[in-house]
Amino acid sequence: MPGKLDILDTTLRDGAQGRGISFSIEDKRNIAYALDSLGIGLIELGNPIASPREADGFSQLCKLPLTQAKLCAFGSTRRHNLRAEEDPALQQLIHSGASHVVLFGKAWLLHVREVLGTTADENLRMIADSIECCKKHGLHVIFDAEHYFDGAHEDAGYVRAVLEAAQSGGADCLTLCDTNGAASPDVIYSLTEDAVGAFRAQIGIHCHDDCGLAVASSMMAVRAGATHIQGTLLGFGERCGNANLSTLIPNLQLKFGYRCIPDDCMAKLTYTAARVAEISNITLNKNLPYVGSNAFAHKAGMHADGVLKNQRSFEHVDPALVGNYRRVVTSEMAGRSAILPKLQQLRPGLTKDSPETAVILEQMKAREQYGYTYEGAEASFELLVRRTIGLFRPHFKLLFYRSQGEYPRHELNPATAVVKIRVGDKETLEAGEGNGPVNALDVALRRALATFYPNIREAFLRDFKVRVLDPEAATAANVRVLMTTTDGKRSWSTIGVASDVLEASCIALTDSIEYKLMLDEQDGIAILSNESEKER
Amino acid sequence: MPGKLDILDTTLRDGAQGRGISFSIEDKRNIAYALDSLGIGLIELGNPIASPREADGFSQLCKLPLTQAKLCAFGSTRRHNLRAEEDPALQQLIHSGASHVVLFGKAWLLHVREVLGTTADENLRMIADSIECCKKHGLHVIFDAEHYFDGAHEDAGYVRAVLEAAQSGGADCLTLCDTNGAASPDVIYSLTEDAVGAFRAQIGIHCHDDCGLAVASSMMAVRAGATHIQGTLLGFGERCGNANLSTLIPNLQLKFGYRCIPDDCMAKLTYTAARVAEISNITLNKNLPYVGSNAFAHKAGMHADGVLKNQRSFEHVDPALVGNYRRVVTSEMAGRSAILPKLQQLRPGLTKDSPETAVILEQMKAREQYGYTYEGAEASFELLVRRTIGLFRPHFKLLFYRSQGEYPRHELNPATAVVKIRVGDKETLEAGEGNGPVNALDVALRRALATFYPNIREAFLRDFKVRVLDPEAATAANVRVLMTTTDGKRSWSTIGVASDVLEASCIALTDSIEYKLMLDEQDGIAILSNESEKER
Repeated sequence: MPGKLDILDTTLRDGAQGRGISFSIEDKRNIAYALDSLGIGLIELGNPIASPREADGFSQLCKLPLTQAKLCAFGSTRRHNLRAEEDPALQQLIHSGASHVVLFGKAWLLHVREVLGTTADENLRMIADSIECCKKHGLHVIFDAEHYFDGAHEDAGYVRAVLEAAQSGGADCLTLCDTNGAASPDVIYSLTEDAVGAFRAQIGIHCHDDCGLAVASSMMAVRAGATHIQGTLLGFGERCGNANLSTLIPNLQLKFGYRCIPDDCMAKLTYTAARVAEISNITLNKNLPYVGSNAFAHKAGMHADGVLKNQRSFEHVDPALVGNYRRVVTSEMAGRSAILPKLQQLRPGLTKDSPETAVILEQMKAREQYGYTYEGAEASFELLVRRTIGLFRPHFKLLFYRSQGEYPRHELNPATAVVKIRVGDKETLEAGEGNGPVNALDVALRRALATFYPNIREAFLRDFKVRVLDPEAATAANVRVLMTTTDGKRSWSTIGVASDVLEASCIALTDSIEYKLMLDEQDGIAILSNESEKER
Repeated sequence: MPGKLDILDTTLRDGAQGRGISFSIEDKRNIAYALDSLGIGLIELGNPIASPREADGFSQLCKLPLTQAKLCAFGSTRRHNLRAEEDPALQQLIHSGASHVVLFGKAWLLHVREVLGTTADENLRMIADSIECCKKHGLHVIFDAEHYFDGAHEDAGYVRAVLEAAQSGGADCLTLCDTNGAASPDVIYSLTEDAVGAFRAQIGIHCHDDCGLAVASSMMAVRAGATHIQGTLLGFGERCGNANLSTLIPNLQLKFGYRCIPDDCMAKLTYTAARVAEISNITLNKNLPYVGSNAFAHKAGMHADGVLKNQRSFEHVDPALVGNYRRVVTSEMAGRSAILPKLQQLRPGLTKDSPETAVILEQMKAREQYGYTYEGAEASFELLVRRTIGLFRPHFKLLFYRSQGEYPRHELNPATAVVKIRVGDKETLEAGEGNGPVNALDVALRRALATFYPNIREAFLRDFKVRVLDPEAATAANVRVLMTTTDGKRSWSTIGVASDVLEASCIALTDSIEYKLMLDEQDGIAILSNESEKER
């Protein structure tokens, strides 16, 4: 019968070994809080002796007032030919301040001999001694048998001896690690089953995703009796990453009835994933199961139509269970029923047959023909709807811009732009320079607007994408610009299409600014700087 | 015993239903070529009747001179209460020009009743009739049993009746589809095994990744006897995507000995993945198994150390098998053997240890650091090599350009540019106008060059792509321009990177023109207009 599983998140240790990932102490603290609030039971903080800076941060982190999670220090067994009590690294690990320690040892003779440079027997003694020493100091010991599956393939007797040594040292948990991500799920199943039958200690699993199988393999290990699961919330880790817990936890809990986190925490999953991505300064993969923004997005007309008729028709779970929501993507593949929910948010009385609905659909189609696509630009879509049903009041008018570029560059910034705008009955002209014409235009437009709307200084671009449409027309082709803007509290995406990249950018930029000013108005934040300014 | 598997790539159909994916006809053509050259056996092109634009492109695509792949049209069974011969959609599908058709039908009664709005019996007749009609016209028919696993869960007898109807209609292949991505690998195993035992037609599998299990599930189906596998090369597809073929193919072929693509194509896998990503204008997920740039990257000191002592210590396969290479953050030894074949084409005596090889590698790395990537720009790579080993003679020098843009536009063309170049001891200044600054620069530069090199008039741009690198720097980010040029006889691709889109375009344009002039010289075509022109 499915029972409780111990989940260990190693985002801060194995995850930090992923390329492009780097955490400050502040980042680590925030991630630990996020994981704790999600109800993760064990958080691996890292190796306290990797560097002096690391050690310092470690002791701070161990004092975090977490509500449920236990903190784990990570390190290796003692060095060969050194007593455990005399190994400075092991002693620092023991006195790191964490109540749990994850101790890794080699289970593959290739590694014992070629990487560690020691003998098979000494490696077994290193494992037993080191664990015994940790236990004497009252620590909970999780033993990570590194390369367990590769090792078993070459010498099944030796990996068994490794686990025996760990158990004899008093390890509370024996984790079978697929360090290279090479084992297939059925091998993992059968070797985990063997270990569960042979040892009284808890059996754990630690998988890597080099064959795209880390989630499946971890599930197989659980079915074979493993009750301790290691992974990283977003799949961060060496090479292709570790088992992704944001996929694994709902798979095990919602589909098979295991208890990984408290039931009332499950709805925090999507938010926590977004939060950890934000702290890590990475863009969350949109296609991630359960937590990605595409996980419940329906684009093709038939799918969108089906899911509106019956949710189960194209959704494997209710998105609300994991705190995500359904997105019916507004694209030419979708029809009237797809855009209706958005229209009704803005004007509740609208139906599928209202004349406004038909007009909006016509406009969308005409614009999509021209190269617009609203699936990644919800703010521009809302503005399009508002303009059509009379719920839009422009905050400014762009009268003109002129831009200049040169090569070779005489200054750091080779491009300049001049912009003139009108707000009410006032006009203003401002100049900007930049490392390209779009950048210069952006700078000039913001300077001009800030005179009237100081709030605009809070907004900055987070993402900027250019796509050339109809590329066979080459440099004369239409250009699509997609931009994402944030003001620290929220972010929104807009789009512009034109034959000129500058003009397309300007359209997207204008929508972005109008949207920000509209949001501020809705929040009741005074946006026009003040009347005296206006009268000046 | 592992045998041959039929691989169907549906990047152009199910993949195109992924959010943020949109293909032009040119993109589709290039992706079909890339998949064909990788040795994929079946390429699903899409639904020929989705829109008139689609139908037009479809017939062009069906005529592509592919070496091994068969093209498949995709569509649904006939509408209810209509004879197959009278269903216009089905008839268009039959006459689309493709030799293979993938026909999908409903296997889940929930869908039959609530989405299709028909009866269980009529659905069975729709399946049998439609397939029979396709077979009469000599087509190879792959039947996709949509929602097979959800359907089987609710009514095992009905899904069996669906496959029976399809087989009685004459289907060559019965594909079990996990359309919602909800089934677990062991359910997929047992239901596939049942189908393999019960039907004489080939059994196929089509998995979605909503639980992060699409690769594992597809592998389980193969173990249960399925021999037709559907997926998308990069995992594109509705919601979380389809089974990722760039993971699945090497898993099945390198680890289990199945034959998915010709053995000598396997080393093209990484290049093909990068190429398809480039055409799709998406950034390839760095952590993708086998083909990602992190797949064989070693960051942690110990891992890097271990892998240099013995490759097997932290690598599950030799990266060269899939055309990837090891990246070790320090002392990078990789790459040399990858570029050597190209160097030897230009200077046969070069070896791995020649000083020129080291210099080129250094240059490549410095430029890749800056944002260059030579995977899609072979002409620029060849020019880089030629410049380094003294095999390059420039045909002109760009002295300067100046560009101007404006909004609102007073003329059809809102942008103008002035360019000055030097050829030998002659200089010329020309102006150009265009619908954007890049277009204006292109026009002016060609006009200036045509004075000296009339052949340049034969060359025109076929494709032009802009990618903003480091998008978080928004409009101040570096920009990568990739262009493809053709002169009617051949085509070549070049790249430019700069903070200014104009400057980046200019770099790519200059390479493109130099390459054309070099090719003409090699062909013995007189390129400098004539001496009198030069003396003028």
